[in-house]
This record gives sequence, C-alpha cells and structure tokens, in this order.
Amino acid sequence: MSSENQCSSVLIVGSIALDSIKTPLGEVNDALGGAAVYSSVAASFFAPVMVVGVVGDDFPREHLQFLESRGIDIRGVKVERGKSFRWGGSYEYDLNHAHTIFTELNVFANFKPVIPDVYRDCKFVFLANIDPELQLEVLNQVKSPTLTACDTMNFWIENKRDALLEVLKRVDVAFMNDAEARQLIGTGSLVKAAMQVREMGPKYVVIKKGEHGAVMFCNGICFAAPSYPLEEVVDPTGAGDSFAGGFMGYLAGTGDVSESSIRKAVICGSTMASYNVEGFSLERLKTLTGREVSERYKAFREMVRFEEM
Amino acid sequence: MSSENQCSSVLIVGSIALDSIKTPLGEVNDALGGAAVYSSVAASFFAPVMVVGVVGDDFPREHLQFLESRGIDIRGVKVERGKSFRWGGSYEYDLNHAHTIFTELNVFANFKPVIPDVYRDCKFVFLANIDPELQLEVLNQVKSPTLTACDTMNFWIENKRDALLEVLKRVDVAFMNDAEARQLIGTGSLVKAAMQVREMGPKYVVIKKGEHGAVMFCNGICFAAPSYPLEEVVDPTGAGDSFAGGFMGYLAGTGDVSESSIRKAVICGSTMASYNVEGFSLERLKTLTGREVSERYKAFREMVRFEEM
Repeated sequence: MSSENQCSSVLIVGSIALDSIKTPLGEVNDALGGAAVYSSVAASFFAPVMVVGVVGDDFPREHLQFLESRGIDIRGVKVERGKSFRWGGSYEYDLNHAHTIFTELNVFANFKPVIPDVYRDCKFVFLANIDPELQLEVLNQVKSPTLTACDTMNFWIENKRDALLEVLKRVDVAFMNDAEARQLIGTGSLVKAAMQVREMGPKYVVIKKGEHGAVMFCNGICFAAPSYPLEEVVDPTGAGDSFAGGFMGYLAGTGDVSESSIRKAVICGSTMASYNVEGFSLERLKTLTGREVSERYKAFREMVRFEEM
Repeated sequence: MSSENQCSSVLIVGSIALDSIKTPLGEVNDALGGAAVYSSVAASFFAPVMVVGVVGDDFPREHLQFLESRGIDIRGVKVERGKSFRWGGSYEYDLNHAHTIFTELNVFANFKPVIPDVYRDCKFVFLANIDPELQLEVLNQVKSPTLTACDTMNFWIENKRDALLEVLKRVDVAFMNDAEARQLIGTGSLVKAAMQVREMGPKYVVIKKGEHGAVMFCNGICFAAPSYPLEEVVDPTGAGDSFAGGFMGYLAGTGDVSESSIRKAVICGSTMASYNVEGFSLERLKTLTGREVSERYKAFREMVRFEEM
C-alpha cells in the first residue's frame, strides 16, 4: 500500500441481481440489486468505477443504462444466455436481519470473473461478497493494486473457510458484519474478534453493525462511526454494499490511504449506507446528489462532536 | 433549568443491594450493588453526592464506609431491621441481557424515600430505577432543582405506566435502554421512539445501547457516543447506572447544563460505564483514579475523530 494522493478508479467484482424484497413499508419485485451494483453506484459518487459481473439476457437494459449514467464502466459485465441471478428476501420488525425467501443463481452459478485487460492496472479493488475462490482469482488477475478489500458472508465462513482465510491474508481491508466476525473467530467479544481477524492479514478490519454504525480497527486504533438516525428505514438491502462502495470510492477518489483518510472513508461509507436504506432497491441513490452526500457527511461530524472535558 | 456554572451536588435515590452475579468470567456472592450505589460512586468522581436508600441491618459496614471514602453523603441511607435487598443474576454469551435468578426485596419492599431537609435544595437530582410512584415522591420533596433525571425499566413500563408518564412529564432527562424506549412507545424504530419519549416531557432522552454505546436526543439534535472497545467485559451489572452517575456527576460538577456540556456528560457516562464493566460489582470503580477517567475521556475523543471531507 502506498499513498499517491491522486484520483484512481475502483474495480468492483460481485453480484448483479434482480431482487424481490418485502419490508414493513412495502415491496418490490425484480428490482435492480446485487452487491456489485450497490457498491458501484455508491462508489461512483467519489471516483470512476469499473464493474465486473454477469447478467442473463433477461436483464433490463435500463438497469445497465443507469449504471452507465453514473459513469460506471460496464465493459466487464458479461451478458449470458439464461436468466439473471434473483434473490427474494423479507425483513420484519428487526430490520437488521434479512430472511431469504429464495435464491436463484441462474447465470451467476457459473460466474468466473475475467478482469478485462484495461482494468488490470486498477489501483483500488473491491471484492464484493462472492465465493472466496473467485475473489482469489480476481486478486491473481490484478497487477499492483494500492488497496484491496473484501466482503464476505456466513455461508462462505461455514463452507469455504480455507479459501476465505487465503483471501484475508491477501487483502488490505476486510469488511464484515458483527455476527460474521464473531462467527469467523468463535468468540462473543466483537473487539477480540475484530483484532483476531486483523492478525489473519488485513491491515484494516471494518465491522458493519447496521443501525449501530460501524467500527474500524487497525494497529492499536479503533475508530467508531454511528449510524445516521433515520426515523424510518424503508429497505435495508444493500446497506453493507453501499457502505463498502462509499468507503472504497472515497479512497480511490482521493488516492489517499492514510489513517486519516480511512477514517473519512468510514464516514463516506456510513453516509452512502444511510441514504441507500431510505428507499427500495437503488431508488434513493438514483436521485442522490453530491451536495446531499456532503451535507450528511457534515451531519455525521456534528453528531459525534464534543469538546475536551 | 438554568446554567449556573458552579459546582453543585447530586442527589441520588435508588436501590442499595447485595448482588450475586455469574458471568462467563466468574461469579460473586452478596457483593455490593444497586442502582444508587453504582450511580453514586460514578458521580462521586465529578461532584459531591448525597444518596437516599435503605439497607437491612445485615448490610456490611465496610460497604457504607467505602461510599463515605468516596465523599458520598450517606445520611440519607436508612438502616432498617431485616435483610438487605438482594438480587441474583447471570449473563451468558450475550452480555447485553441479564437473566434474573432471584429478587429478594426484603427491606426495600417498604422503601419510602424521605429526603433529608439538608438535601432538599440539591440542584441535580437523579431518580435511579425504582417504582415511578416513589420517583414522584422524591420530585415532590426537592425544592428547585436545576436538572432532574430518571431511569426506569421494563417492569414499570408494563405495570406502572401512568406513574411513569407523570415522571417523564416532570424530569429534564430520561435515561432508557433501547429495548425500553421501543417498548414504551411500541415501535421498532429507536429514533422514532426516542423522539416520542421527548414529546412526553424530557428535554433530553438518553438511550443506552450497551456495547453499542449511547445516543442522546434533544430538540432536533442527535449526539452519538460509541462504547469503549473492551476486549473483555467481566460483569455488565451496573453499567447503565454508572453511565447515569457519570453523566449527572459531570453536569453537577460543572454546573453547566448547556448542550455542549450535555454532550460531554454523555461521554463521562460512557467512560464510567466502560470502567465499571471491567470488574465484578464495584471492584474496578474502587481502584479507579481521576487520571484514568481523563485518559479514557480523551480516548473517546480519539475514537470518533475525523476531519472534513
């Protein structure tokens, strides 16, 4: 890792999906979703984005057009014959937990990430939540990234532990939610879990805690960000992905990977996640402006401000 | 409420107990406990404290001597014939939830708080978690407090709702944990719950979230404090009470009830709670120094620090 302090692009690899979601405030069917989509759109507020993924030939053209309208390079999105990846989920009283109703992998089942030549020099790489074996394939294809990051989920912790540990050895930043960190390490103490994940490789471990905000651990440092106090969460889907996208986008956009910049990246992540949950699917991010992003960032500063004793 | 900016005392009314506690890290029997004890000791690091409560004639003299050694005025502690209030509880994997094993009210069953004349001019009043009808009796006995605060629990929300609502009308600060606020208002949204509690009377609503920190709501303002990242929590008992004690003590010690001061008070509360859970019963607070309090307060500032974008 080195700090270059000039704007770079972010390469994002992950799922592109059609989501059917039900929350206490409504529902949508076959709406734009997927970790790579949420994180790419969030990152695009800060830096150029290149996305790698796969969709079926049923994938609405308007969704790809929307990504392009955000300046996202979609040359890495393969369109294959067959149906797009679909996920159905619902949220009840506790919006921190999604109940999966169905998962239809479809064309995503045989996804092999091929990083286009023009993407391989990319300095910032985000491996969204996919099979850690595929994440390793991506790491093998990029040339000399400044900063790499991965996300994961309980399924891979249980079923692909060795590959995941290999990924953790090789990335600079690991995103995890609190339950995943506890599960990976096998301890009730989140602090202990985060510190032990760090010992597995990543310089920075960022624990996402939903409505309780996020905590970043690096060498002897703990940085805590609250969540933005929303009266209503319309749809929590993609909050973690938007967080990671905002985080990576901010770092790529500034080219600065100092600790001070990482702290700001956590707040940019929190900002994007907080806007994302205000609407179903990508609805809110579609209308979001750069000015609103700055305003909420400032609101975060005001929320945690206090003077010396 | 007015800001006088000179040191005042805190009057604290609540339970004084002998606790038997089991956590994954050990256990204690008949150890010093009770909301009034935890909050008084925490407050005593910042301001003079006067405590009102009741103990049985079996209450170890050394415990009262310890309170006196902290400069706490115990003339309001009645010693009655009979056994002291005893509580037994255990914590398992999830340290946020205590499992009550037994509650023996004993002399506490007939507790009627009588505020000694010399205490009635007290400017800062903390009604620890007791029957809201008793909290009202205390409010009727104090003369012209600068700032009053109450704590409560699920039992009173269910069984003494009207009295509790009356208390909330009359206090300046309401402390609640997140589950209690949601229960009182009947909503899953913590932000909505906190804002509606505010409409019931208190200018400040402080939501305690255990390992997730605390959030303070006042007119249009939300201030978020993280919890201190402890690798191990030895005993969570009294964390909320220590929080409230540190909060009230700080305000009384400075006499400043401005919003800026309230923010600092939340951090002082978080500081005291974080130390308290490092040992069983009052063990850690017994050895705690003012210097350590300042150090952790500074650590909280460092934990949330980030620059403009």
